[in-house]
Amino acid sequence: MHAAGIVRVEERPDPRIEQPTDAVIRLAATCVCGSDLWAYRGVESVKAPMPMGHEYCGVVEEVGSGVSIAKVGDFVVGSFFTSDNTCEICRSGYPSGCVHRTGMGSLGAQAELLRVPLADGTLVATPGMPDARHLPSLLAASDVLGTGWYGAVAAQAGPGRTVAVVGDGAVGLLAVLAAAQLGAERIIAMSRHAPRQELARAFGATDIVADRGDEGVAAVRELTGGLGAHSTIEAVGTQESMMQAIRSTRRGGHLGYVGVAHGVQLPGDTLFFSQVALEGGPAPVRRFLPELIERILSDTIDPGRVFDLSLPLAEAAEGYAAMDERRAIKTLLRV
Amino acid sequence: MHAAGIVRVEERPDPRIEQPTDAVIRLAATCVCGSDLWAYRGVESVKAPMPMGHEYCGVVEEVGSGVSIAKVGDFVVGSFFTSDNTCEICRSGYPSGCVHRTGMGSLGAQAELLRVPLADGTLVATPGMPDARHLPSLLAASDVLGTGWYGAVAAQAGPGRTVAVVGDGAVGLLAVLAAAQLGAERIIAMSRHAPRQELARAFGATDIVADRGDEGVAAVRELTGGLGAHSTIEAVGTQESMMQAIRSTRRGGHLGYVGVAHGVQLPGDTLFFSQVALEGGPAPVRRFLPELIERILSDTIDPGRVFDLSLPLAEAAEGYAAMDERRAIKTLLRV
Repeated sequence: MHAAGIVRVEERPDPRIEQPTDAVIRLAATCVCGSDLWAYRGVESVKAPMPMGHEYCGVVEEVGSGVSIAKVGDFVVGSFFTSDNTCEICRSGYPSGCVHRTGMGSLGAQAELLRVPLADGTLVATPGMPDARHLPSLLAASDVLGTGWYGAVAAQAGPGRTVAVVGDGAVGLLAVLAAAQLGAERIIAMSRHAPRQELARAFGATDIVADRGDEGVAAVRELTGGLGAHSTIEAVGTQESMMQAIRSTRRGGHLGYVGVAHGVQLPGDTLFFSQVALEGGPAPVRRFLPELIERILSDTIDPGRVFDLSLPLAEAAEGYAAMDERRAIKTLLRV
Repeated sequence: MHAAGIVRVEERPDPRIEQPTDAVIRLAATCVCGSDLWAYRGVESVKAPMPMGHEYCGVVEEVGSGVSIAKVGDFVVGSFFTSDNTCEICRSGYPSGCVHRTGMGSLGAQAELLRVPLADGTLVATPGMPDARHLPSLLAASDVLGTGWYGAVAAQAGPGRTVAVVGDGAVGLLAVLAAAQLGAERIIAMSRHAPRQELARAFGATDIVADRGDEGVAAVRELTGGLGAHSTIEAVGTQESMMQAIRSTRRGGHLGYVGVAHGVQLPGDTLFFSQVALEGGPAPVRRFLPELIERILSDTIDPGRVFDLSLPLAEAAEGYAAMDERRAIKTLLRV
């Protein structure tokens, strides 16, 4: 990305092993993330041209001498933060908070080849080479599925609970899928876009609320005996969406917030008297990867359906534009 | 309280049973809460003279026809919010969020007699008449102990965890006690006042940090291998204390916030990237009362030590002034 709105596909030197703990992978596919749009839209400033992309899966091309989790030719999936998977923070279940983490965005996964630092703690190998039909879902596991899943876990979605999901982007839709997989009794998807409503239903939503703000909150409360949802997942990251999410949750309920917060200020007194517990932030995707991969390869879930646009990598700019203009939920880039 | 800083003890009509679910109790003792000081200091406006006090224990004087939890002559302890203990929110463990709750402050527990609505869901009877030496502790259970306990539970204090406590008022000190009772490995009390540091140590603090702000955060991080505490309890309610608490907590850690938030704005991006989970608000004290009463009557804990000033009810004004000027941690009012 050269500046807000300016995406170019350029030749760069092939990545190489720099540390013994590195792996280089040849991407099976890559994609554009909703969070990439913050820079595209100028909400996050772009001071210099930067590589983009942090979602990836593919075949190991080369490994450093210290890598034992995979060998050349293995298929692997990783997370958008590297992790050593051995530090105290990783062991507590938060690899995205690893003391040695690196953001993969700075390395640029919208590419043909990608260097992955801390490969042993970051990558998970699949049992054998996956079928082509599983590739979009495995790619989704790398971020949007793992992030939606974390939102549902953080919101304590589960049996007997009503879950509301604020946000109908890929993460919100996959939070619906996660809540259903975790056994939630009722899942309210908040969306005003017919194709997204349809996908939400396919992923397990039992109710759709098209209203936003006060009306949206009122609609959720009406569906929940006036109390609000037990579990709410926030997957947007704006002031409006956070407040809508808090207000849609009952006292003693849980909010999992995974939209990257931009310009959000949470009023302390509102939060205090809401009695809603908050957990969120960059999702510890590595924690969930083995389980997610298993569900994908066993055809239990099909999160790859969030990719409703597929383009060659060379047309990345159009992939961004389509998502920015909400013509696409999520763009897969073929390499 | 007639206006900020103006406390008068006046004759009022004796409370009576108004609903079949009411009880009237004769208070064994009452007290001034740190949260009463928000109005005393003019941070919360006092538009008209209002009764004060929401912490209470005592002997049942009269019960409505629908009350079965206690009979006349029984000794009972209640919480600062009434609760039916049967609604969905109560059953989920949040009686302070009960759909039928009433704040006891509006009824005024700084008095000789007190009407308690929803007695069956609000009060807990002790097994027999407690010794006089247990009265201060039973009174503390009504709010400050229950609130500190909730802070520790919300922060997931427990074995193997390092707990930091921001705030050295009665709630903060009792959060130290709660963390110790819950088995925390290490407890860092943040206090710069020698007598409060001493009480914190007596309650189980293993470390004292006298610094605040950046220096306080740095000191906690130094004590925790650079990571921050697993569990932090915020027991003040200001912008500074909330930010200090968030920044003192490690990624993937938990913050229990029980200071009543005043003028606090939490920056969403800081919270997001902190990866600190938040739970707080008005404490569901009723959930903990049976357990707290048992620990008090078995002399396992002595939370009544937070009362370092005891005055007759008639001198309530001085009780407020002493706490406002930090000459007293907490004032017990004898009735």
